[in-house]
Amino acid sequence: MRVRWAEVDRQGIVFNAHYLMYFDVAITEYYRALGYPYPQGLAQHGTDLFVKKAEVEYQASAGYDDEIEVCVRVARLGRSSLEFQLELYRADQLLVGGKVVYVNADPETRKSAPLPEFLRGAIKRFEHTAPIEALTSPA
Amino acid sequence: MRVRWAEVDRQGIVFNAHYLMYFDVAITEYYRALGYPYPQGLAQHGTDLFVKKAEVEYQASAGYDDEIEVCVRVARLGRSSLEFQLELYRADQLLVGGKVVYVNADPETRKSAPLPEFLRGAIKRFEHTAPIEALTSPA
Amino acid sequence: MRVRWAEVDRQGIVFNAHYLMYFDVAITEYYRALGYPYPQGLAQHGTDLFVKKAEVEYQASAGYDDEIEVCVRVARLGRSSLEFQLELYRADQLLVGGKVVYVNADPETRKSAPLPEFLRGAIKRFEHTAPIEALTSPA
Amino acid sequence: MRVRWAEVDRQGIVFNAHYLMYFDVAITEYYRALGYPYPQGLAQHGTDLFVKKAEVEYQASAGYDDEIEVCVRVARLGRSSLEFQLELYRADQLLVGGKVVYVNADPETRKSAPLPEFLRGAIKRFEHTAPIEALTSPA
Repeated sequence: MRVRWAEVDRQGIVFNAHYLMYFDVAITEYYRALGYPYPQGLAQHGTDLFVKKAEVEYQASAGYDDEIEVCVRVARLGRSSLEFQLELYRADQLLVGGKVVYVNADPETRKSAPLPEFLRGAIKRFEHTAPIEALTSPA
Repeated sequence: MRVRWAEVDRQGIVFNAHYLMYFDVAITEYYRALGYPYPQGLAQHGTDLFVKKAEVEYQASAGYDDEIEVCVRVARLGRSSLEFQLELYRADQLLVGGKVVYVNADPETRKSAPLPEFLRGAIKRFEHTAPIEALTSPA
Repeated sequence: MRVRWAEVDRQGIVFNAHYLMYFDVAITEYYRALGYPYPQGLAQHGTDLFVKKAEVEYQASAGYDDEIEVCVRVARLGRSSLEFQLELYRADQLLVGGKVVYVNADPETRKSAPLPEFLRGAIKRFEHTAPIEALTSPA
Repeated sequence: MRVRWAEVDRQGIVFNAHYLMYFDVAITEYYRALGYPYPQGLAQHGTDLFVKKAEVEYQASAGYDDEIEVCVRVARLGRSSLEFQLELYRADQLLVGGKVVYVNADPETRKSAPLPEFLRGAIKRFEHTAPIEALTSPA
């Protein structure tokens, strides 16, 4: 991705909340690479995921027009939760790292439910076979 | 409203697209003042409105932390369309003006449909009786 | 560009103000293609550009995850102003069109000033030689 | 604050990254209440603050048009860092909690520097005397 003018603040750097938005774009691409594009690929199996927790560590700032890349992988598979680990780079420099935890929940009641086996299996296979490069968001 | 840090760009001024977002907030307050809070107040009458056209004229810029106020009124009532006229002020200074045209459409088919009489009537009454001050967005 | 989750509203379509942000991304790419990347390519010549007017016509909506493309060209070169014409497509379907007018202004005083000759010349050459395809924003 | 249409996603709830933006608005109001409005109140003392770390815990979602309130206080004062604790409510219900850590840094070199005494003192006095209610963001 290229940093957009609208994403940069008066200090000339990306506004802190936008990194979670970049993370979200990367997670979307992760689901696509997995073969279950969000949300319809999950919804058709009666599954929806809600963010439970997010952590962001800011090492350095991205600036306007910088080309950035987000690496994402699943770091932990719980009974009903899913933890993504993310790293945002400009060239070889790690700018921002973080994690985002999702909980599987019934779309109607929003009660947490076990992660469906199809998703658990797809993630396990994917994490074993895909090179990290394949996970980065192209746009 | 107060201009937020996230809304200001590297030039220290509000990014140009955000004025349409401020307009949208003001139009929301207009519907609330009318007695038909968007969207449920209209949806329950089988009505939904889609933006057809927007125009923005930038006279001067709002900056970070500025207190701004948006005045809104309906300038024209068509058969199936509705034109809002908007003015955004900082104190007494007009910064940005514009208009936004909505078309009434069936939520399913998105085909345009005549403006329902209840809405037409409510707007006509409101425009005759409400002082401009009552239309400005409080938050 | 791909439409991001954060850009889509409760109706499942891109929020109306964001199209101006897409236009802005496309205009950035236009300056890059011209050889004067915004803003430093212009600033080093003592030039800065401020939005004066924007118009958007909404024909159809982009939805989440849609791949969209923005075509941009300069439609009019005034003495101190510059009018971009923009068209946003999903595949072959025109979704949103518009124009954005910029005024050249002194970065300090914000008084309008004639468009510098280097910029006027670069745009004229570019509009004669570049195929429309070359102008579309890649990311 | 009222949740804006532009802040709500296809699930009808606030997009996860926007809570960090609400936190930012609340922290701005904290500095104002302290007597050092950000950024000029700090910059004139040669101080600037950069986000180092953010954590967000999502308990429940805010929806469109909800009236939300953010409570903020300083939970920890380090040598060069400052930790805000934040809680976002709709009426009496805690929706989202979190913390944001800032580091004081030289605006030029971005090297971390001890928190200036004036700021440390102001925060200590404020945390002792201000009722929580006074800290919440009014707009």
